[in-house]
Amino acid sequence: MAIVKGNAVIGQSGGPTMVINQSLVGVVEELKKHPEIGKIYGGLNGIKGMLEERFIDLGKESEANLERVALTPAAALGSCRFKPTEDDCHKLFEILKKYDVKYFFYIGGNDSAETANILNEIAKKDSYELRVFHVPKTIDNDLRENDHTPGYGSAAKYVASSFMGNDLDCTALLGVKVDIVMGRNAGWLTAAAALAKDPDDKDSGPHLIYVPEYPVTINEIGMDILAVHERLGRCIVAVSEGVVDKYTGKPFADSLIDEVDSHGNKQLSGTGALGDFFTVEIKAFAEQNGVKNLRLRSDTLGYAQRSFAGFRSDVDAKEARMVGRKAAQCAVSGDIDGSIAIKRVGDSPYEVDFVRVELSSVARITRDLPENFINDKGNYVTDEFIEYLRPLVGEVPTIGKLNKEIVKL
Amino acid sequence: MAIVKGNAVIGQSGGPTMVINQSLVGVVEELKKHPEIGKIYGGLNGIKGMLEERFIDLGKESEANLERVALTPAAALGSCRFKPTEDDCHKLFEILKKYDVKYFFYIGGNDSAETANILNEIAKKDSYELRVFHVPKTIDNDLRENDHTPGYGSAAKYVASSFMGNDLDCTALLGVKVDIVMGRNAGWLTAAAALAKDPDDKDSGPHLIYVPEYPVTINEIGMDILAVHERLGRCIVAVSEGVVDKYTGKPFADSLIDEVDSHGNKQLSGTGALGDFFTVEIKAFAEQNGVKNLRLRSDTLGYAQRSFAGFRSDVDAKEARMVGRKAAQCAVSGDIDGSIAIKRVGDSPYEVDFVRVELSSVARITRDLPENFINDKGNYVTDEFIEYLRPLVGEVPTIGKLNKEIVKL
Repeated sequence: MAIVKGNAVIGQSGGPTMVINQSLVGVVEELKKHPEIGKIYGGLNGIKGMLEERFIDLGKESEANLERVALTPAAALGSCRFKPTEDDCHKLFEILKKYDVKYFFYIGGNDSAETANILNEIAKKDSYELRVFHVPKTIDNDLRENDHTPGYGSAAKYVASSFMGNDLDCTALLGVKVDIVMGRNAGWLTAAAALAKDPDDKDSGPHLIYVPEYPVTINEIGMDILAVHERLGRCIVAVSEGVVDKYTGKPFADSLIDEVDSHGNKQLSGTGALGDFFTVEIKAFAEQNGVKNLRLRSDTLGYAQRSFAGFRSDVDAKEARMVGRKAAQCAVSGDIDGSIAIKRVGDSPYEVDFVRVELSSVARITRDLPENFINDKGNYVTDEFIEYLRPLVGEVPTIGKLNKEIVKL
Repeated sequence: MAIVKGNAVIGQSGGPTMVINQSLVGVVEELKKHPEIGKIYGGLNGIKGMLEERFIDLGKESEANLERVALTPAAALGSCRFKPTEDDCHKLFEILKKYDVKYFFYIGGNDSAETANILNEIAKKDSYELRVFHVPKTIDNDLRENDHTPGYGSAAKYVASSFMGNDLDCTALLGVKVDIVMGRNAGWLTAAAALAKDPDDKDSGPHLIYVPEYPVTINEIGMDILAVHERLGRCIVAVSEGVVDKYTGKPFADSLIDEVDSHGNKQLSGTGALGDFFTVEIKAFAEQNGVKNLRLRSDTLGYAQRSFAGFRSDVDAKEARMVGRKAAQCAVSGDIDGSIAIKRVGDSPYEVDFVRVELSSVARITRDLPENFINDKGNYVTDEFIEYLRPLVGEVPTIGKLNKEIVKL
């Protein structure tokens, strides 16, 4: 494949992460090394902004500022949730031609990969030689072909630190705490709460984890909670925002939330409705079972999971930079299109490879937690999952506890 | 005042903070230096546990473990929300006499100071020479006599980091974000959101801050939000959980939440009800004013504000240690009772003093944000407040932004 001279454009799409800008900077720094690349444009707010010709010149940014941007959470170019029609694609190509763009990079999750795939297919039909690369990111960790995705490790670290605090908080004040964790259709991020468990304290929380892959009933959750609460006086529960009601086969949230985006996804974050629903249901269940005045609190962990400032997993940050670089390397080396996937090639020491895969193989359809990562009762994760997760998060905070042996006079 | 030989007991009470265990360790390490102190007991779950004779021996803890505990959020001894009756006090004194306790330390907020004050008054009546010290902590920053309270700086840093992320998140995806911040009757912690504002970017959020000290109407909030949203396409709003409805003179949350503790405080945290209430009201207000389909999200920042693991303001941690030490110093040097207050004695460089004050002067009644810290419209803080806050939080994350000048062909 001949080397193509031309300009490049980079866009970001979907929900922010703490390290998505690492990938952006990775693409830029690699492209800068290649003389066949002219201008390096940033498209503001993904293809939505590109359709309005809102391009900025990333080549003008100083290295020092790019490094600051890399450490900053949330899409520095702005984002969008926008699925293009065929007409949008034709219009976009007219614009890209005007800007002499031959290289197109789109950083995002499975919906963004779908967008890249649509663009790529229609570019082929239009005989427009556009090199289309998807660069993976999602806190949901649900991209196929990938061992894990950039953004997940940092979000998982946030969730684990949050649950550590919750368990200590509830050890101090007792009661039941139900936290709703992001993740839409896959339980990866909710499962990460398990990393909060203190290896030296078998009674530490979280005690229960419910993921969308394993439908449950309110009664099952209620019984699980009361059993732990009776034993320890507290119970810390991680519930995925997408957890599914066994009776209806649909997410509990479906009946509570109406808003839907252009990819057909329900708006699950940015509301406390699901947490408050569980609070009411579990309190009622407890009363029916003779447990009066159960102290029950619920937090919905919220946007901090994907954009808490100054916080990251170092491994995640490094890998996010690498997928950006790798996408640029592939594009200039003659590959016409694809997505970059992270493959794990070693466990001890932990080691990964970055490989090109087909756009269609990561687009649209998401990847669930495999069965061997969920326990038989569907209310916790397995040790295999913990082993899988630990290297992605790196160091977690150290916890000190007092010896609580009661003094006998 | 003669030096009294005897044992000491330490309790923790009220809501956890990220640095409350620093104060615990501060008391312990200071007491260890004094030969007149025999055993150093920890009372589990405050006076509630002491009434059940649940004491542990803190003298047996290694220095290394105490240092780990100091870095761990949430009350290591366990906590309670419990206001003792006179009968409880008599009963407690019988128990404390049995354990030869002459020194009593209670780490907590204004309710805990009230408990300490009640104990102290009844001890006097009973002619029980008990040295009663209150050690301040509260993320609410609402203790009288104090420039600020241990726990506040760390919580403020968490809130600021969270709002930084929120502003970046909403810069990327646009829309309105309303975050509910802890703080019950005083707006100190909500006001801390202002530290998220990027000094180099006047359009950065948060854009609006509502505190309980300044009652508002939904219409006022709605108009403020629409004005910012029209100008920037986004609006980041910090709302205190205790914000007051100008029409009724009562917190908006009052009509949404029923649960009350033994000090008469409403349960405001651990529910998304208030955030969801504002979402509905502001969406309705926007529609009435011709703004359809406003993208509006709400997060209730939750327990992470007081117990996110591995996170702290270094200044706050140091001062929390110091108030514990100072309380122990006062108690053994002959002062019979009191609370330790932080007084600011210098602004540049920032410097504080730790002084003994009367228990009654910090008990029960809280301290509001003063008028000069809130702007005239009651929808943001003043520069004076930012100057007050900055040294308590220390370093905040660095934010990098791209130059968004649109390329012209």
